[in-house]
Amino acid sequence: MHSETPSWQKAAQAKRQAILDAIPQKWRIQYDTLPIDVTGEFIQGYLTPREIEITEADAVVITSQTTSGSWSAVEVTEAFCHRAAIAHQLVNCLHEVFFEDAIRVAKELDEHLAATGKPKGPLHGLPVSLKDQFHVKGVDTTMGYVGWIGTYQGKKDDPRHRVTESELVRELRNLGAVLFCKTSVPVTLMSGETTNQIIGYTWNPKNRNLSSGGSSGGEGALLALRGSPAGFGTDIGGSVRIPASFNGIFGLRPCAGRIPYEGAANSIDGQNTILSVIGPLATSIGGLKLLFRAILSQEPWQYDPLSLPLPWREDIEGQTKKLITQKDSTASQLTFGIMRHDGRVKPQPSVKVAMDLMERILRDLGHQVIEWDPKLCREGQEIASETYDMDGGEDLLSHIALSGEAQIPQCSVEPVKHFNAREVAELNVQKREYQKKYLDYWNSTAKLTTTGRPVDAVICPTAPHAAVIPGKYRHTGYTTFINTLDYTSLVVPICCADKHLSSMNERSEFLNELDRKIYEEYDPEIYHGAPIGLQLFGRRLEEEKIIMIAEYLSEKVKVYTGQ
Amino acid sequence: MHSETPSWQKAAQAKRQAILDAIPQKWRIQYDTLPIDVTGEFIQGYLTPREIEITEADAVVITSQTTSGSWSAVEVTEAFCHRAAIAHQLVNCLHEVFFEDAIRVAKELDEHLAATGKPKGPLHGLPVSLKDQFHVKGVDTTMGYVGWIGTYQGKKDDPRHRVTESELVRELRNLGAVLFCKTSVPVTLMSGETTNQIIGYTWNPKNRNLSSGGSSGGEGALLALRGSPAGFGTDIGGSVRIPASFNGIFGLRPCAGRIPYEGAANSIDGQNTILSVIGPLATSIGGLKLLFRAILSQEPWQYDPLSLPLPWREDIEGQTKKLITQKDSTASQLTFGIMRHDGRVKPQPSVKVAMDLMERILRDLGHQVIEWDPKLCREGQEIASETYDMDGGEDLLSHIALSGEAQIPQCSVEPVKHFNAREVAELNVQKREYQKKYLDYWNSTAKLTTTGRPVDAVICPTAPHAAVIPGKYRHTGYTTFINTLDYTSLVVPICCADKHLSSMNERSEFLNELDRKIYEEYDPEIYHGAPIGLQLFGRRLEEEKIIMIAEYLSEKVKVYTGQ
Repeated sequence: MHSETPSWQKAAQAKRQAILDAIPQKWRIQYDTLPIDVTGEFIQGYLTPREIEITEADAVVITSQTTSGSWSAVEVTEAFCHRAAIAHQLVNCLHEVFFEDAIRVAKELDEHLAATGKPKGPLHGLPVSLKDQFHVKGVDTTMGYVGWIGTYQGKKDDPRHRVTESELVRELRNLGAVLFCKTSVPVTLMSGETTNQIIGYTWNPKNRNLSSGGSSGGEGALLALRGSPAGFGTDIGGSVRIPASFNGIFGLRPCAGRIPYEGAANSIDGQNTILSVIGPLATSIGGLKLLFRAILSQEPWQYDPLSLPLPWREDIEGQTKKLITQKDSTASQLTFGIMRHDGRVKPQPSVKVAMDLMERILRDLGHQVIEWDPKLCREGQEIASETYDMDGGEDLLSHIALSGEAQIPQCSVEPVKHFNAREVAELNVQKREYQKKYLDYWNSTAKLTTTGRPVDAVICPTAPHAAVIPGKYRHTGYTTFINTLDYTSLVVPICCADKHLSSMNERSEFLNELDRKIYEEYDPEIYHGAPIGLQLFGRRLEEEKIIMIAEYLSEKVKVYTGQ
Repeated sequence: MHSETPSWQKAAQAKRQAILDAIPQKWRIQYDTLPIDVTGEFIQGYLTPREIEITEADAVVITSQTTSGSWSAVEVTEAFCHRAAIAHQLVNCLHEVFFEDAIRVAKELDEHLAATGKPKGPLHGLPVSLKDQFHVKGVDTTMGYVGWIGTYQGKKDDPRHRVTESELVRELRNLGAVLFCKTSVPVTLMSGETTNQIIGYTWNPKNRNLSSGGSSGGEGALLALRGSPAGFGTDIGGSVRIPASFNGIFGLRPCAGRIPYEGAANSIDGQNTILSVIGPLATSIGGLKLLFRAILSQEPWQYDPLSLPLPWREDIEGQTKKLITQKDSTASQLTFGIMRHDGRVKPQPSVKVAMDLMERILRDLGHQVIEWDPKLCREGQEIASETYDMDGGEDLLSHIALSGEAQIPQCSVEPVKHFNAREVAELNVQKREYQKKYLDYWNSTAKLTTTGRPVDAVICPTAPHAAVIPGKYRHTGYTTFINTLDYTSLVVPICCADKHLSSMNERSEFLNELDRKIYEEYDPEIYHGAPIGLQLFGRRLEEEKIIMIAEYLSEKVKVYTGQ
């Protein structure tokens, strides 16, 4: 019997085509086969030398050119639009394309600079990409749900559709940023891989056998291809950090209350045991810092009821700089914890190589490094899992049900126990007590350091593996316990999996079956070239300190890896 | 048939007697009849001139004497213990009495000062009272529940009982404060009057026909009688502000995250839609500021996972001072909103007198005063009500059930609908949208001010009445909408109900039946002499600004009222 194509498939197909159609014909590409790695020389092949020069500059260099008028906003915008268009055709990383609008905005910025002699703001002329949770005038926000196409968060005929903008978008426009595309996410957002029925699978540009990570996977892939210099993702379990790690870029999970979430779409909105947070991703630590500081300069707490009145704290920046530069005779004044594994799953050999490199750098620089105890990870991971499932899956299932779209294994949801208010409260108490235990542990490290202070930051893997083989992301615990803690965590790119190096690490003993399984799934050939980033984490609301330390360490990593 | 006294009554009676027995025999008093007003001369009659001198000083004067060694900590502590002992015998305001321990601590402080020449901290030798939610070594925490007597929060044989201390207690000890008693609360904490089966009813010291307010009613009454110079209460719906208003003292509801709640007992712990917060109460605004700053100096965020890393912000203090002193030719640089009623219940004539006085002061001082729209109050009040009942009353009922104690009308709980996690999330979304609407409204006032800035603070009643007639607290909406907003609110004492003044305000039209009922319940004779404080509120985390403005205005109020 011949079956009709379901209507959700037709709607998804039409939207997929509409995204492609939004790319100007001149930027459409044809190919028969693609190499495994489509970054660098491969994508450069589609671009002019000038476009390459512009798009391979980071946000700091770009804004230094655009705010001074050396580069026009239009030229910069066109270059990134072109490169983003190609990126999407290579790895499926975009949900919305609005290049014409971007070029119009860029033109206005150029006119503004010409007329006033002043840039509109610190991001004047900087193209910024956004995960498809932010509402931007004139385009959809689907979050990968077929049932959200042509609606406002699934609501048909809602007057806000294609009209309202998220608070972050308003602030970015104020700052002079040029918005030009929205990037792909896994349906439901609750996945470390990016795949949905509309655009399919977002592949890793460095190794197209692998995942770009998730849920801000489109951001990760686009930045890896330099189709955008910087953008914003969100993170409730690792969704900024995982794509950062998998794509060799920088990503910050700030604590709740720093970057305004007001007016953005979300999954399980109103669940407030563990808040999803917005964080910047960028191709350089300078670019990440630029975006973070720029948003704070807009005083988001005046417009977003959940934002905290914390401007960029110059005093903490200064204190951290002093710790970095002020070294006594035997050791620097910064001390680090190193958490080699989370007590449940040890990292694959490739990630161990990255950890060993980082440890060697810290020791070579004279920093005291203490072993960080992983025993508190498990409870944080379990609290996170319970939190995500608290409503029994009702919210996620209701959005999938809008269109009747088929579920995808990596993002599948099934009905589970639905908590009542008292059970939610009990989980909140457990979470607070867990946070207290972790804080006490952190404070206790003052007894172990030569400085007499608790350690300044901790290094740990972002995932047990480099950019993962599709379908093999079995353990997100390296990122989720940080969400339960609401701690600051910044992913710093370290290296890429190297089949020659990592075969050294033979293991015959395992913590448990999952640990064995993930170890056995390490394949030096398939993973070869996959990026690996490590987390550098600090306590609650320590963004300034962690950004400054990341800036310091990433420079050193470059020296060691010869990047 | 003769019925046995239930065991819960026996347990309550034994505890009530144990509290009295903890008061030294020499401080026990006898009386046949008491005057209506037991403050001032009446209570002074039990004290020496030196005790009166000490106990009628505020926390600023006391610490200036004790930190310099002019007054010994022991002498100060003994004076307050004595006065608190009498206060309790007059109005039932204490749950725990630990004077011996206080005097031992005071002795150590005196020795410390003698030995080192330095005070232990900014609160050296200052007696501080605590609402009976804070755990202090050696004594119970009952929160008025009969079933909590001799247990840790209702748990028998819990090793924490009488052993652990709340984080706030630890910090107060670090600061040199002397803890000497815990003050009464209504059973469940969810009431604007203070009454429970253990100590009975906490009467208003200025007018013993009336309530001392709740739920920090024991704090309010004790401070009104100068049995303590300053203390800490908690507030999830007005529980710091109501007793402050009803007792002619200062009380601050800071925003969540300023004063550490870690390790304190609570009702419906883990409900995190609207967080209960801890706030200081004091007999002077200077005393209140001293306590607030002292706690922040302990960096509570290093020990309490829910505290924010916000020290006392000198820059905001300075900016506010500048606004206060910097006046241009026509108007001061501070502008105020005045919210005369909440759109549901107009204040009784006595409170209107207080509002009119405050408005006159503001206008005389040249401040711009704009009418503050009450239309957003109702939604905030409704969200608060739903939040309090979210678990269907289960938590409160479970604690009442421990002993089987009889319910009390003012604190009665009955089972209602129990929300599920999705309904909780929907309420959280509604709350956030409500906060956003209020923020937008506040920002919109920039169009109405001569300064071009939104108004700096708003004045409104704390309750529709002065210290209330028992059983007649029918509308807590003046305080609850502030909790939904998580705004800063500080109660400033203004005046007392005066039967001669308030008869002027005849009303014949009413907003609704409740409004009529509350108006009709105004009795100039009964209410005569009852204190009235007004709220001065600012936005989220504006404590420094609101404290500075309260300091400025309370000085002016004194001038006008001749206090």
